[in-house]
Amino acid sequence: MFVTDEQSFLPTNPFAEPTTTTASSNTTHHGTDDDMIDIDFRNSNNDKLNNGVMNVDLVNTHYDDFQTIDWLKDLMRDRFRHRLLRAKTHNSLINKLLMYHDAWSGWLCVLLVGLSAGVIAGVIDIGTNWISHLKHGICLNAFWLNREQCCWASRNLQYTSVNTEECTEWFTWPQVFGLYGTGFGRDLLSYIMYIFWSTIFATFAVLLVKVFAPYACGSGIPEIKTILGGFIIRGYLGKWTLLIKSIGMMCATSAGLILGKEGPFVHIACCCGNIFSYLFPKYGRNEAKKREILSAAAAAGVSVAFGAPIGGVLFSLEEISYYFPYKTLWRSFFCAMVGALVVRSINPYGNGHDIQFSIDYSVPWASFELLPFIILGILGGLWGAFFIKTNIWWSRVRKNSRLGKYTTLEVVGLALITAIIIYPNPYTRMSMSELIKRLVSQCRVGDMIDLCDYPGSPFISGTSKGSVGLAGPGVHRAIWQLFFALIVQVLLVTFTIGTKVPSGIIIPSMSIGAITGRIIGIITEQLAIQNPTFILFRHDCSKDENCVTPALYAIVGACAFLGGVSKMTISLVVIMFELTGGLTYIVPLMAAAMTAKWIGDSFVRGGIYDAHIELNGYPFLDNKEEFNFTTIAAEVMRPRPEQQTSLAFLTQNGMTFSDIESLLKETTHTLYPVVVTREHPYVVGQIQRRDLQVVLRSQKMHRYRLSSSVIQFTSPAEAAQNSDYESDSRSDQRLTTNTEVIRIGNLLDQAPIIVTDQTPMETVIDLFRKLGLRQAFVTRNGRLRGIITKKDILRHIHQMSSHNTETAYYDN
Amino acid sequence: MFVTDEQSFLPTNPFAEPTTTTASSNTTHHGTDDDMIDIDFRNSNNDKLNNGVMNVDLVNTHYDDFQTIDWLKDLMRDRFRHRLLRAKTHNSLINKLLMYHDAWSGWLCVLLVGLSAGVIAGVIDIGTNWISHLKHGICLNAFWLNREQCCWASRNLQYTSVNTEECTEWFTWPQVFGLYGTGFGRDLLSYIMYIFWSTIFATFAVLLVKVFAPYACGSGIPEIKTILGGFIIRGYLGKWTLLIKSIGMMCATSAGLILGKEGPFVHIACCCGNIFSYLFPKYGRNEAKKREILSAAAAAGVSVAFGAPIGGVLFSLEEISYYFPYKTLWRSFFCAMVGALVVRSINPYGNGHDIQFSIDYSVPWASFELLPFIILGILGGLWGAFFIKTNIWWSRVRKNSRLGKYTTLEVVGLALITAIIIYPNPYTRMSMSELIKRLVSQCRVGDMIDLCDYPGSPFISGTSKGSVGLAGPGVHRAIWQLFFALIVQVLLVTFTIGTKVPSGIIIPSMSIGAITGRIIGIITEQLAIQNPTFILFRHDCSKDENCVTPALYAIVGACAFLGGVSKMTISLVVIMFELTGGLTYIVPLMAAAMTAKWIGDSFVRGGIYDAHIELNGYPFLDNKEEFNFTTIAAEVMRPRPEQQTSLAFLTQNGMTFSDIESLLKETTHTLYPVVVTREHPYVVGQIQRRDLQVVLRSQKMHRYRLSSSVIQFTSPAEAAQNSDYESDSRSDQRLTTNTEVIRIGNLLDQAPIIVTDQTPMETVIDLFRKLGLRQAFVTRNGRLRGIITKKDILRHIHQMSSHNTETAYYDN
Repeated sequence: MFVTDEQSFLPTNPFAEPTTTTASSNTTHHGTDDDMIDIDFRNSNNDKLNNGVMNVDLVNTHYDDFQTIDWLKDLMRDRFRHRLLRAKTHNSLINKLLMYHDAWSGWLCVLLVGLSAGVIAGVIDIGTNWISHLKHGICLNAFWLNREQCCWASRNLQYTSVNTEECTEWFTWPQVFGLYGTGFGRDLLSYIMYIFWSTIFATFAVLLVKVFAPYACGSGIPEIKTILGGFIIRGYLGKWTLLIKSIGMMCATSAGLILGKEGPFVHIACCCGNIFSYLFPKYGRNEAKKREILSAAAAAGVSVAFGAPIGGVLFSLEEISYYFPYKTLWRSFFCAMVGALVVRSINPYGNGHDIQFSIDYSVPWASFELLPFIILGILGGLWGAFFIKTNIWWSRVRKNSRLGKYTTLEVVGLALITAIIIYPNPYTRMSMSELIKRLVSQCRVGDMIDLCDYPGSPFISGTSKGSVGLAGPGVHRAIWQLFFALIVQVLLVTFTIGTKVPSGIIIPSMSIGAITGRIIGIITEQLAIQNPTFILFRHDCSKDENCVTPALYAIVGACAFLGGVSKMTISLVVIMFELTGGLTYIVPLMAAAMTAKWIGDSFVRGGIYDAHIELNGYPFLDNKEEFNFTTIAAEVMRPRPEQQTSLAFLTQNGMTFSDIESLLKETTHTLYPVVVTREHPYVVGQIQRRDLQVVLRSQKMHRYRLSSSVIQFTSPAEAAQNSDYESDSRSDQRLTTNTEVIRIGNLLDQAPIIVTDQTPMETVIDLFRKLGLRQAFVTRNGRLRGIITKKDILRHIHQMSSHNTETAYYDN
Repeated sequence: MFVTDEQSFLPTNPFAEPTTTTASSNTTHHGTDDDMIDIDFRNSNNDKLNNGVMNVDLVNTHYDDFQTIDWLKDLMRDRFRHRLLRAKTHNSLINKLLMYHDAWSGWLCVLLVGLSAGVIAGVIDIGTNWISHLKHGICLNAFWLNREQCCWASRNLQYTSVNTEECTEWFTWPQVFGLYGTGFGRDLLSYIMYIFWSTIFATFAVLLVKVFAPYACGSGIPEIKTILGGFIIRGYLGKWTLLIKSIGMMCATSAGLILGKEGPFVHIACCCGNIFSYLFPKYGRNEAKKREILSAAAAAGVSVAFGAPIGGVLFSLEEISYYFPYKTLWRSFFCAMVGALVVRSINPYGNGHDIQFSIDYSVPWASFELLPFIILGILGGLWGAFFIKTNIWWSRVRKNSRLGKYTTLEVVGLALITAIIIYPNPYTRMSMSELIKRLVSQCRVGDMIDLCDYPGSPFISGTSKGSVGLAGPGVHRAIWQLFFALIVQVLLVTFTIGTKVPSGIIIPSMSIGAITGRIIGIITEQLAIQNPTFILFRHDCSKDENCVTPALYAIVGACAFLGGVSKMTISLVVIMFELTGGLTYIVPLMAAAMTAKWIGDSFVRGGIYDAHIELNGYPFLDNKEEFNFTTIAAEVMRPRPEQQTSLAFLTQNGMTFSDIESLLKETTHTLYPVVVTREHPYVVGQIQRRDLQVVLRSQKMHRYRLSSSVIQFTSPAEAAQNSDYESDSRSDQRLTTNTEVIRIGNLLDQAPIIVTDQTPMETVIDLFRKLGLRQAFVTRNGRLRGIITKKDILRHIHQMSSHNTETAYYDN
């Protein structure tokens, strides 16, 4: 009659044999009432508001560091808080105002986040600009001015381009040291000073990060994805991280390292989101709700980086966020909007913030150009695959070898090498955003730079459309220099991303893409000019008019290469759309982005951020991927049926104090299932380890016969109702004698999530992803068979995907 | 020892007392194998591919009309199909190609949808234009030309504006009848012909709809929302609906009725989506997957209506779609993009398709203008509330009174009245999109229309910025005419939307908003001019320069009024952003849209589409709303514990053929739970009614001792394992004698979704929404207590929301 094949349900405590202590189910438990208050405080007088089911903890649920959060419970807690607040509104005006404040606090919070992200981005832009110029010279009268401001202040001129004329107040380093004029000595001094300052800035950046805020390194996006997926990393979004990352980013960018500051903006904005959320307990004290603010902040981060509010929201939606309800979408847009407007009003000339292309190409794109655009897409996909593989390989080497101990030296050395290599080439010497800006600009009348050296072009007359004609020697020189720049950037960026400085991959990718695009654009242009009758070109190109704008190729290349690395789709196209303005070039951009993603996906699944999440082993359950497993819950649950380990659980009536104490000692789970009896393991509910500990502690203080007290989760009425089970078990007899009974049914959560052991893992994963579960109980015919936790699921996904990687491509 | 308090679990069949038929669990069931093949066909040789758990039906799951779909099962079915396909790829090249075709078919399908939606939109634009002009006259030489084409063809002139000059080939109706020149008679004839044609077109439209495609009326958006939420309405997205809606829309719009054609574009695009999805069995045969295509089609619908691809995707995401995985987002964008490009290439001048504002206001907006913008937002919210309440009230009257029988007459009468009222006023006589276009245009040098009658303005010199100066008598006249147009449109649109013609509310709302906006803009402008020293204006306005652009107010008004009616948020702003181009005016638009939504929500929760869903009682489970209930699953499940009705279920071993036959006769459920025994109702799995019917039918053909055959869901091994239950029950003895045993365990779905009876309804609703469930079993301590279906949930939400509507506002 007894179930004998369920050995696995023996608890792990040594009291496998029933103890001899007994308890009466009808005893008057003297002194218990006092103690119950200690445990009962949570649903004290709010029973009507509460469902009477869940133990909603109004105080901050304290998650430990590196724990996953329980979305379901947290959101439930917020609803309960809201109900409580609303119930009070009838009392007084102040409560009514509190209610309104509560309703508005989300908007107020994202407003503050948007404003602060905008201001910080503006300050960083200005600061980076100033520090970068410091590598070349100084404004002797007013060292806090950058070159333009210095010249403008001294000469009262309008905004002067950096690259054309000199001005009297601005001293290059050779001039400071008394070397005027030109010559080898002066050049060498400039070179040395450039290397010197670059190394100094890089050292400063890495030391700042190492000493004050180790979390400030990298772009932060993988970690933010993980945090938004429901993970706790204390201090990752703190004020120190914010401060150090902002300063470190200015220094690292100014040091000339091949890294961008756009990715880290997301981290900085999220720091703002985290800090401001503490002003509003609704968000600050509820990890699930806080993630709504963080999602909005991530959107603002992209928005301030690119001036693309819609792109920012879509980036947050597509790439970063996990739980993104629709009202958060609207609020995120507001946040992104505010950020974009603030950064625009701080930096109206956009001179530090030059990721804004003003596109006014004179020639529309022709359909044959789709071919080179798709080639760019393929190259972008290849670049993405190459970069991700190499970068992850190098990160692994760094992690596992002795190199990991010399991170400061690594950065300093890298800065030194970078500075030495990049100075001689004009295209690498300028900042990457300047380079992108130059590459995406069309050649115009009077442009004297190498890239626009078209001797045959009728530019002088001013009537031409586009850059017509055969390329002169300047263009040839430029192509070689660009090619050199390409190699340098590709090599350096692979080793730079992942070092202990704030670093983003977005701008380097765009820069590499823009170089490739411009080169391919010039090649296509020259081909079209030299073979105007070739079948591809015949239709669109005539002798007189040029049909190819190499600058457009630079933009398409930037889009493709960024897409290859990040695997972004709609947000990438929308960001490019907002940067270029208008639908005209959306087809080339889409073609390139799609090709890049497809090609990239066939080599490496997921973008660089996913790769880093995997590298670091973060517990991130991707809610975008689709799984196609043939496994079922019984194969994933713990304990495994084939193993001899047993499942730790509590019975609803029969356990004594010492049973529970030893169970807690021997296991470290945060949560235990409660079943009817050992022989009938039907799930009654679940209880937190923390709650059990509180019970034990509070009871210890008041009682002497600890170990013999029986803990019951049911009320006397329920216990009677369930007596049919008790009669089966041996605990039945125990309950007749007079012992202490402690009822803690109010701590029992009677709403656990249950799946059957035959449920396909696809459904289980969906359940975990969409409800944000931490664990689920697995039953068969009602009987508890095991538990699946989020970590079991992650482990399973990892196992499955490493088994059949060849399926990945088709699943796209 | 037996449970006695579970009376509710008696099945509804009359065989409450156990039958006396017996069966041996170890019998060799002769002849059964033949029959098993009939039932077994599904997992025939695909056991390895299938989870071995779910009965994945490879053929089309046939849902009945007006049924809700089972997302979970449908998506599972698609994964299984995919696995099967992938397993075959190793066999041959053709299968490999099929695999590639499968991977691409989603893209191919949305490409076709985008192309067709674009083409149809272009054709409708051109057709509407031609029919509209027919009301005024005809091109005698070539009746198929509209006025512009006629004039252009005859005079070889470049595009001539309709409102300026005459041309020889175009005959107005008085001219056709021989009345040349001007005069009262000619005007009267024009008026009569206008009324005549309007009535004819409206009659044609309503008859077409009534006779051929009743589903073609209205905007279709509420129904599409419901369909995308997982409901089957056969024929709603069919080819007849597509054809009739396209033609009907041209006629209804041309008839001058106060309705728009932008909303119906969504319906038309979804028809295309539905039709093309049948080319690809992956989508056509799987209702859940088909909804991916429909979501993309909805995005294309908005995209072709407004030329706003990003706005279309966000509209689909925010407003229409239910299940919107991220890869669908990207595909939808592609679809919307293709649609926008096609419609642009068909109609390059945009003359039929004039919902594209070319904004180039000369004066930026000043901060004090936020006040009138917010007032516009408030008015928009009020308008939305008024319209929704009145329109729903009228729809209810129409539904419940005798008026509902005279729908044709209603439309014809409405067209007659509309034509009579709107002809005399120039602002109502022109089409609403033309009116909007005029209202959002800034006054320019040489504009001779009333709206631009500023006598003091230094327009003649051509140096001015904006329309400076006091308004002349023309402006006063225009304001009165606009005010009259406003009243007319407000009254007529309320009664027009909901009649049996294709009708959208988007353009009428924008038109009403634009009129209100322009009026308020002119008032603000005149106030600013007359009181330049007033504290509000002092900072931004000077005597010489105007600071107010009334045309901007028209756009803000259009945005606010559309927002008030539709309660769209981010998609509205993005659509306006794409229409106006650029971030400059996004702050006014956001301020107005946000105010309109908040004000509107405080009167009526949800937009017009939600109101119509509720009016029609569609089973739509909103996945955007947040619920804050205190109820638990036990209070919602059926049967209710307090009622005496019982739950229909099957036991895994003990039921005979006739038991099941009568159970199917007495109940109409589509699905039955299978439990261990009657006394131990632990859930084993679930079985479809359809499958049971198949079993009964196939058995009936082969057997004579029908009623005594025992149906078992377990294998012999399992049955032995479960013998501890059997020993409890009386069925135990039965199994010893030799009877027919039919095993249909392969039809049992052992992965039902289970919740405990104490689970908060918020969690249950989340489960239903996020997994797309049709039903869940409710258990307590493992014992089946009841079932919750999607309809129970909808009923519960409805009950709860009608109880406490005052909470709605705060939940925002």
